[in-house]
Amino acid sequence: MTTQSPATPLYDLVITNGTIVAADAVYDADVAVVGERIAAIGHGLRGRRELSAAGCYVIPGGVDIHVHLEMPIGAFTSTDDFYHGTRAAAFGGTTAIVDFVETRPDETMLQALAARRAKAEGQAVIDYGLHMTIGPTDIAKLDQVAAARAAGCASFKLYMAYGLRLSDGELLLALEAIRDVAGMPVVHAENWDVITTLIRRNLAAGRTAPRWHPRSRPAELEAEAAGRVIDIAAWVGTPLHIFHVSCAPTAERIAAAKARDLPITGETCPQYLYLTDDLYDRPGVAGALPVCAPPLRPAADRAALWRALAGGALDLVTTDHCPFTAAEKATGIATGQASGQATGLDDFSRIPGGVPSIESRVALVYDGLVNRGLGGERTAALQRWVAVCATTPAALMGFTRKGRLLPGYDADIVVFDPNVDITISPESLHETAGWSPYSGTSLRGWPTTTISRGEILVDDGEWRGAAGHGRFVAR
Amino acid sequence: MTTQSPATPLYDLVITNGTIVAADAVYDADVAVVGERIAAIGHGLRGRRELSAAGCYVIPGGVDIHVHLEMPIGAFTSTDDFYHGTRAAAFGGTTAIVDFVETRPDETMLQALAARRAKAEGQAVIDYGLHMTIGPTDIAKLDQVAAARAAGCASFKLYMAYGLRLSDGELLLALEAIRDVAGMPVVHAENWDVITTLIRRNLAAGRTAPRWHPRSRPAELEAEAAGRVIDIAAWVGTPLHIFHVSCAPTAERIAAAKARDLPITGETCPQYLYLTDDLYDRPGVAGALPVCAPPLRPAADRAALWRALAGGALDLVTTDHCPFTAAEKATGIATGQASGQATGLDDFSRIPGGVPSIESRVALVYDGLVNRGLGGERTAALQRWVAVCATTPAALMGFTRKGRLLPGYDADIVVFDPNVDITISPESLHETAGWSPYSGTSLRGWPTTTISRGEILVDDGEWRGAAGHGRFVAR
Amino acid sequence: MTTQSPATPLYDLVITNGTIVAADAVYDADVAVVGERIAAIGHGLRGRRELSAAGCYVIPGGVDIHVHLEMPIGAFTSTDDFYHGTRAAAFGGTTAIVDFVETRPDETMLQALAARRAKAEGQAVIDYGLHMTIGPTDIAKLDQVAAARAAGCASFKLYMAYGLRLSDGELLLALEAIRDVAGMPVVHAENWDVITTLIRRNLAAGRTAPRWHPRSRPAELEAEAAGRVIDIAAWVGTPLHIFHVSCAPTAERIAAAKARDLPITGETCPQYLYLTDDLYDRPGVAGALPVCAPPLRPAADRAALWRALAGGALDLVTTDHCPFTAAEKATGIATGQASGQATGLDDFSRIPGGVPSIESRVALVYDGLVNRGLGGERTAALQRWVAVCATTPAALMGFTRKGRLLPGYDADIVVFDPNVDITISPESLHETAGWSPYSGTSLRGWPTTTISRGEILVDDGEWRGAAGHGRFVAR
Amino acid sequence: MTTQSPATPLYDLVITNGTIVAADAVYDADVAVVGERIAAIGHGLRGRRELSAAGCYVIPGGVDIHVHLEMPIGAFTSTDDFYHGTRAAAFGGTTAIVDFVETRPDETMLQALAARRAKAEGQAVIDYGLHMTIGPTDIAKLDQVAAARAAGCASFKLYMAYGLRLSDGELLLALEAIRDVAGMPVVHAENWDVITTLIRRNLAAGRTAPRWHPRSRPAELEAEAAGRVIDIAAWVGTPLHIFHVSCAPTAERIAAAKARDLPITGETCPQYLYLTDDLYDRPGVAGALPVCAPPLRPAADRAALWRALAGGALDLVTTDHCPFTAAEKATGIATGQASGQATGLDDFSRIPGGVPSIESRVALVYDGLVNRGLGGERTAALQRWVAVCATTPAALMGFTRKGRLLPGYDADIVVFDPNVDITISPESLHETAGWSPYSGTSLRGWPTTTISRGEILVDDGEWRGAAGHGRFVAR
Repeated sequence: MTTQSPATPLYDLVITNGTIVAADAVYDADVAVVGERIAAIGHGLRGRRELSAAGCYVIPGGVDIHVHLEMPIGAFTSTDDFYHGTRAAAFGGTTAIVDFVETRPDETMLQALAARRAKAEGQAVIDYGLHMTIGPTDIAKLDQVAAARAAGCASFKLYMAYGLRLSDGELLLALEAIRDVAGMPVVHAENWDVITTLIRRNLAAGRTAPRWHPRSRPAELEAEAAGRVIDIAAWVGTPLHIFHVSCAPTAERIAAAKARDLPITGETCPQYLYLTDDLYDRPGVAGALPVCAPPLRPAADRAALWRALAGGALDLVTTDHCPFTAAEKATGIATGQASGQATGLDDFSRIPGGVPSIESRVALVYDGLVNRGLGGERTAALQRWVAVCATTPAALMGFTRKGRLLPGYDADIVVFDPNVDITISPESLHETAGWSPYSGTSLRGWPTTTISRGEILVDDGEWRGAAGHGRFVAR
Repeated sequence: MTTQSPATPLYDLVITNGTIVAADAVYDADVAVVGERIAAIGHGLRGRRELSAAGCYVIPGGVDIHVHLEMPIGAFTSTDDFYHGTRAAAFGGTTAIVDFVETRPDETMLQALAARRAKAEGQAVIDYGLHMTIGPTDIAKLDQVAAARAAGCASFKLYMAYGLRLSDGELLLALEAIRDVAGMPVVHAENWDVITTLIRRNLAAGRTAPRWHPRSRPAELEAEAAGRVIDIAAWVGTPLHIFHVSCAPTAERIAAAKARDLPITGETCPQYLYLTDDLYDRPGVAGALPVCAPPLRPAADRAALWRALAGGALDLVTTDHCPFTAAEKATGIATGQASGQATGLDDFSRIPGGVPSIESRVALVYDGLVNRGLGGERTAALQRWVAVCATTPAALMGFTRKGRLLPGYDADIVVFDPNVDITISPESLHETAGWSPYSGTSLRGWPTTTISRGEILVDDGEWRGAAGHGRFVAR
Repeated sequence: MTTQSPATPLYDLVITNGTIVAADAVYDADVAVVGERIAAIGHGLRGRRELSAAGCYVIPGGVDIHVHLEMPIGAFTSTDDFYHGTRAAAFGGTTAIVDFVETRPDETMLQALAARRAKAEGQAVIDYGLHMTIGPTDIAKLDQVAAARAAGCASFKLYMAYGLRLSDGELLLALEAIRDVAGMPVVHAENWDVITTLIRRNLAAGRTAPRWHPRSRPAELEAEAAGRVIDIAAWVGTPLHIFHVSCAPTAERIAAAKARDLPITGETCPQYLYLTDDLYDRPGVAGALPVCAPPLRPAADRAALWRALAGGALDLVTTDHCPFTAAEKATGIATGQASGQATGLDDFSRIPGGVPSIESRVALVYDGLVNRGLGGERTAALQRWVAVCATTPAALMGFTRKGRLLPGYDADIVVFDPNVDITISPESLHETAGWSPYSGTSLRGWPTTTISRGEILVDDGEWRGAAGHGRFVAR
Repeated sequence: MTTQSPATPLYDLVITNGTIVAADAVYDADVAVVGERIAAIGHGLRGRRELSAAGCYVIPGGVDIHVHLEMPIGAFTSTDDFYHGTRAAAFGGTTAIVDFVETRPDETMLQALAARRAKAEGQAVIDYGLHMTIGPTDIAKLDQVAAARAAGCASFKLYMAYGLRLSDGELLLALEAIRDVAGMPVVHAENWDVITTLIRRNLAAGRTAPRWHPRSRPAELEAEAAGRVIDIAAWVGTPLHIFHVSCAPTAERIAAAKARDLPITGETCPQYLYLTDDLYDRPGVAGALPVCAPPLRPAADRAALWRALAGGALDLVTTDHCPFTAAEKATGIATGQASGQATGLDDFSRIPGGVPSIESRVALVYDGLVNRGLGGERTAALQRWVAVCATTPAALMGFTRKGRLLPGYDADIVVFDPNVDITISPESLHETAGWSPYSGTSLRGWPTTTISRGEILVDDGEWRGAAGHGRFVAR
């Protein structure tokens, strides 16, 4: 049953001497790459090329399943296009993203998918997937869901807010269609009807400054919307992922659903883990910059989200990366509640929502869970860090070859140096918004080398990548 | 930063072509061994010796952290000594166990540890750890806990039943001492005072048959005891592991503790997952054989335990392996409640408690979680199987190099053939009790090859091991 | 401080020798009336007129806070007008009701209240209150809520279903307005958007029979709607009463709200306590008769509702009395989902919803709680019976002089004979629908004498009342 | 069916013009008494003697079901004997108490009951019941429980602490015996084994001051003991009353039991509602005075207890009245843990436990619930006050004619003047301990007139009672 063998081959590339952090183990080993895949994990592996990761953590590349690159809102488009956005992601240690497809009324889902892929093709430097958005006009196209799934969109975005929002009956129909193709619904859960009522009232009362943004979107009714779609999903019999949980009440609904053994997951974002709603009180555009939805919350929610992330009520961290320039934030969009000539500074509802964090996510989560101890003792915290930034999002989204450093998986590898000291600034980043909500934040630990399918994109901080390396991943 | 390298070395041993099942991944890869350790996981690995695992699962060797080998109870000793017990374990795919040390009043913990190690030394064929038991006479020796910990006993057994039981105050003191050395307490939780009261009453009323054994040990008061020691541990501020959960109410207490973010874990055993209390109604010695404590429970509890194991309320499966022969079961021990000449068949409280399952554990859990679908869809079920049989118990017990197939870990490797059909019988097993509670149970899937620290103990079903290969593992 | 006095006066009317059942006591005493009020409870009271209640229970008159008399739905009007409906109520032991006011778009709330009072005036034989309905066109009239409250409408009906439904934002505004006048919101909670979606789908698929009525209104989404309005009410900071709970999931939401110390109450109705959804499977009009909303549910829900009623998760029992004739049920209304010439039997959504029970409510609840033991031991069950049928609804609705037999309260008194055997039939009742869902139900115990503000309406089964005795009660 | 009658009789005594507060109603009415019973509640009642209660609340006399009069502890006896203790109770608006019987080993329960009744007979000025204590030596006498029940002891005291504590098995046997006679067990729940362990350790370490008293009795392990006896009671199938809940964790266990529909009730005492554990830090005897068990807790527990009392998790308020003089507190008893000549001030475990509050209970609870608003809005708070001080304890203890002001009930009536301002001092009270933990506490509202079975004991603050008026009440 056993045989003598020739020598194990020389590998294309080996990352040597690092400490591998997996979602459930931390251990010292080399990582060997052949072509685009990991060929081996072991000791003393030899390659035609070798990179030393001594003193560093070697982790599976980050997976950010919630980004909006070159996304149009009114007259604006989010500042990072597929090239710059994925390049910034790569600098920050992320090697896969999931962005969105939205169909026009006169388009099929496959046409819209093709059009969106065309935007990314030749531009993206890391691999990407796409959520198929199901808006109100798509309810008539639910028979296309199977085709979208077959074309690689394993996840479907459902809005409970904004113009793309679905009514509860439409949510039910969409969830059934997604269930029937074993897809994964991902949901923006807020109570839009309450929000528009409160916005209208606040604006009518002259309460137009950014500080009225969070006061128009109560945490308890974000939780209500999450609870509602969970109820509908439970009746339909489908798993469900809740996007951008901003507050304790929503995290509690997800925890309660898990306690009932429902297959519900939830994510939060760096902005909710780092920023608080007092930022909206800042004068001028400074108060407008961090407008996003759901809004930032008080510090007690922030602390609760870290606990939920460490304890398992929340499953992963994404960015909801959707940057606009300060000028765009100040100008505002035409689709706000108020009519006339008002600017964003005159009317909080006109401020384009969204903040950038695609580049700093991995380091920010590391800093909280590991350096600040919010993830418990160090080994457990390291594992949780990799779980929430890479392993769990990859698994949830059906990236069957990403999120883990194991033989046969894509060679999406990041070397993270825990001893680098960095202070975030627009200049330190490769995002294009021109500002960062984390400016001035000092972190210890940053990704230094990023490899995507065997290709070194960032080599000890130097850019070596090329537009178009990234591929659409059918999931 | 990169250099050209010589070839990767030829390994001592490679398990080729198998499907590796880890606690959080299932993937195809070879496992390469150098000396006693895993050197690499990868594709195309070459070794001086190679074993094909085509069509099989390759898993980390099972870790059974609750066994009683050659354990004296009254005039009897559990039938499997360290050689035969560990050999049976190896045949069943288990490569590490944790047994127990009990001190005599006049002994130090280190003396008792040395004496117990002397029994295993030269006998055990797989690695073993030892829990240090803290009984009532050891409360005066709590200053020795640090020495025991330093000598490799990272876990400490506390009884809430039997002669070794601790009072609640003693539990508190023992838990504090264990906490102070960052040890792990493991607890037999039953309400002994209630049990002895009910035994006394039942015997006095002539209710002496084995069927009165479960009726003297209410499930709700097993749960009470678990809840009580959890309360004390929470006050002390220590993690805690609950042994041999037999019923739904106890599992619920553990789940509730987890929901409060307390570091509480729980295990169950094959007997509670497979057998039910109607066995005690069988006439003669047949009714006496499955006497163990806690007792077997109704089928509803059995179903609840599978759910708890799959869902995470319970963390792992051990055996509490403690076999006695049918003759010993019938004869009974002298320490029963009743006096005089009564035999075990005359007085259920005299029947030596314990059942054998050290050899069939891994296959029994596989059959339930994977074949019968109690662990969910197949990939998730396979992962859960490895988690509860190997990875989690190893991590909990501080076996830092066991429970996972990763470079640097001990080469404790099992090849599990999912296509083997087997019907359990005393003859099919290597246990020495002469009977098995699973006799007649047909399973598909059984370990065929077992490797301990690079040494092939069982090679495609053939014994190749030697007494004394196993070592004490200081944790 | 003490003085000698003349004799206690002779009372106008004394109910002698009965057993008084209060919500928290059962005791033997006479009840003395002077004018319209209770003057004394005591032993040996003497009156100008005396009625013996020997062997009977003497209870406060029932209070049914959810009835629809002469209510228009499409071309039909519910069969019982204020005279016949209140007369039937009186025969059944109910001495106060709360019906509804709905405003036309061009009407003020006060105008609509006056119009509705005009319908009842001169007709009602027992006292009545009116809930002010706040529909979508009333959101612009929320500044009239204070006037409505001042005019005696202390409670406000909010629909989450049907044409009168409010959006979530409108619910929030209405709840705030009600909170500001310390009013009590009462809510029909169903997820209308889901319901209309399911109705549409079922009709489109040719699933038009009454059995598709419950299949279009899932219990879990009734619970969702209740949970949603509770969430909004909690944010607003107002108590809330949930109408006609039909199923276990909704009762659980109310229980959960109570456990969070929220001031939420809930009611159920005899139809949900007695009938089950298999009635919709009956052929022809028989299957259409019990159509009501929420629909009847399976037997497990029925059992859960009795437990919730006994245990306190539900607070009271109303009827939602809204009868239509069998011919009307068969014909159907024009406002159904389907267009064209379809009848109710062709299209379940056209069947006018509602069942009659205004007369049998008190006896039906008695039979379950007391005779069938669902309310626990007899004394506790009797008290719970009076609590849920009279005392609690009166208190919740602000009937400050009803619901209790105490000095100063209205002399609304019912003598209930526990030894009367009755089999319900259309002929035994004084309702005008011509059918009863309880036809054939045999009960032991029925009200024999009913007194409203000192006036004997029903005297040992004989009608002595007169149209117009009943008055509007400003609350 | 009706007849003309002679006049209603002139009553012996009428309390006129007051506002009656019942557990579920507040209304204006006179209360008429004939002999020892209430004859009528009504308007315009006339009596041979009339007392005006204008401006005052008229309530059922308080029922304090947990007092220790002339109770021996070591060489001391609690300072209030049956005469002085019940007289103080009457001054404070309490008209019924329940004290305790303890048997000597050589006594039957009936003999002990007779002996204890003999102490009270001729002394007590208000009615009293007696709990039969079941200590360890009484387990052999469980066949006498039926006789004790027949002799009027409907409730049975079980200790989980002190010399009278029962083991868990004994608790089970006692609870079964009590269940079999439909009796009510009342339990002192603390984990004695843990307590003695901590006391021993603290004393050994020289931590002898009163502040180590609470540090030897952790709140979490009071909760554990309550949870344990609830578990046993649930298995046995009996209701259970938990004495003197001192902390949030215990209240939570009771709330959780209620949520599981278990018939568990709980009480707290004025000391836990008013005092906090920082009192133990006071120097000298001042720190020793408030020693009681369970001990006083931090302010957060105090707040939680008020919420539990208002919200229903706790059912009633008793005193556990057990006063000792300051000299006795300082001297200490011989049964402490430490040997030798130590005094109470040298050894906190020797301080006789207990504080006086039999006289101020009703007013203290009123002040919190009503004046300070802890019971919610005024009418609800008034009702809750009467419920927890009189109605609920009477019902729970089987005082079938006490706790309510209804015809046929005992004429135990208290006039409570809400406008009296009082500052508590030893001189203002009629207790005999010579000190009060509430000295200096200013209250608005105090009982002015107390009537027991028609006999005026306290008439507008003046003593009119006589020793021996009180009778043993067989329950």
